[in-house]
Amino acid sequence: MIKDKPVQQFLDELASKSSTPGGGGAAAIIGAMGAALISMVANLTVGKKNYEAVEGEIKTILARSEALRSQLTGMVKADVDVFNKVMGAYGLPKDTDEQKAQRTTAIQAALKEATDVPLACAKLCAEVINLCLPIAEKGNKGVISDAGVAVLAGYAALRSAALNVYINIGAIKDESFVQDRNRQLEKILSGMDTLTEKVYQIVKSRL
Amino acid sequence: MIKDKPVQQFLDELASKSSTPGGGGAAAIIGAMGAALISMVANLTVGKKNYEAVEGEIKTILARSEALRSQLTGMVKADVDVFNKVMGAYGLPKDTDEQKAQRTTAIQAALKEATDVPLACAKLCAEVINLCLPIAEKGNKGVISDAGVAVLAGYAALRSAALNVYINIGAIKDESFVQDRNRQLEKILSGMDTLTEKVYQIVKSRL
Repeated sequence: MIKDKPVQQFLDELASKSSTPGGGGAAAIIGAMGAALISMVANLTVGKKNYEAVEGEIKTILARSEALRSQLTGMVKADVDVFNKVMGAYGLPKDTDEQKAQRTTAIQAALKEATDVPLACAKLCAEVINLCLPIAEKGNKGVISDAGVAVLAGYAALRSAALNVYINIGAIKDESFVQDRNRQLEKILSGMDTLTEKVYQIVKSRL
Repeated sequence: MIKDKPVQQFLDELASKSSTPGGGGAAAIIGAMGAALISMVANLTVGKKNYEAVEGEIKTILARSEALRSQLTGMVKADVDVFNKVMGAYGLPKDTDEQKAQRTTAIQAALKEATDVPLACAKLCAEVINLCLPIAEKGNKGVISDAGVAVLAGYAALRSAALNVYINIGAIKDESFVQDRNRQLEKILSGMDTLTEKVYQIVKSRL
């Protein structure tokens, strides 16, 4: 599993001509880094003088950021699995008409899964960004730049996941599926640029 | 060294209340991921049919992206080292006036170093973004979404590094140093938002 490999090896494999890990896995890891940095700011806020009033809220944020981190880390494996499924479907025999039809069905089903994995990743990244707002506003000033890095990571991961939705959706023939997923993605992306900038400016004002 | 630790452990330590790794190290890793993804697209372009005409240029890009990846990975350790130096300076004795003066001098020197590490990181991230343009235009269409993830990672890393410059520069008393580094940072950041969007749109148009 990628998460068990040393960071250096992960980077080496990312750079290599092997297709996985690729941008999908990278997006999930960057999103997980965003969630981890929210947790770091929260961990350095809980129990500190001058932050007693927000301690309850910060603990709630921490529980959520740790759940998001775990889910996003899991997305790395999901991305590899679904990529292998798509490749497997493309590799099916296509000698007879029946085989061709079965192969097409398998490819289309795999592509739908390969769309839903980055879509789920995008949804989690949007939650990371949302969670950056209260931590940037209320987290320990001494480490507030880390909340800024968290939101930037979350936003890069969100748009990266979106690219991975677009690339898979392009080859899907089921128009109602395509429209539905495009609508879902648009809804997830909506307002995230503005929110990211808002958090960044809050962080800068508290540096 | 952080780069030798499993990805999961890196994320756990990032999320923990330990100050390192923090946003500075995260920025360097995200930048290195951007460089790695340029390398991936380049590795999957070299030697491929229909890309013979650009092969020389792609090889040059690959050499540069691999150098940037190595330098950015090295920044993770530099970030930890300089953080420890700052903490060490703050921990110096301050019982006598002479000690106080020595401590202040040591803190100011360490803060300058702690500004120059993320500034160097920002410079490398800007190079990652610049390198994304030709790879997005000329790289293998089949993996072009990875060039999009590369530019988003590079841009998030650049702005994250900038936050780490701002946070350290705020405590530096040498006004000419502050002005010089602010000027350098502004120059590095200039136009990078537009370039990132340009690359993203090129990638989307080639999906």
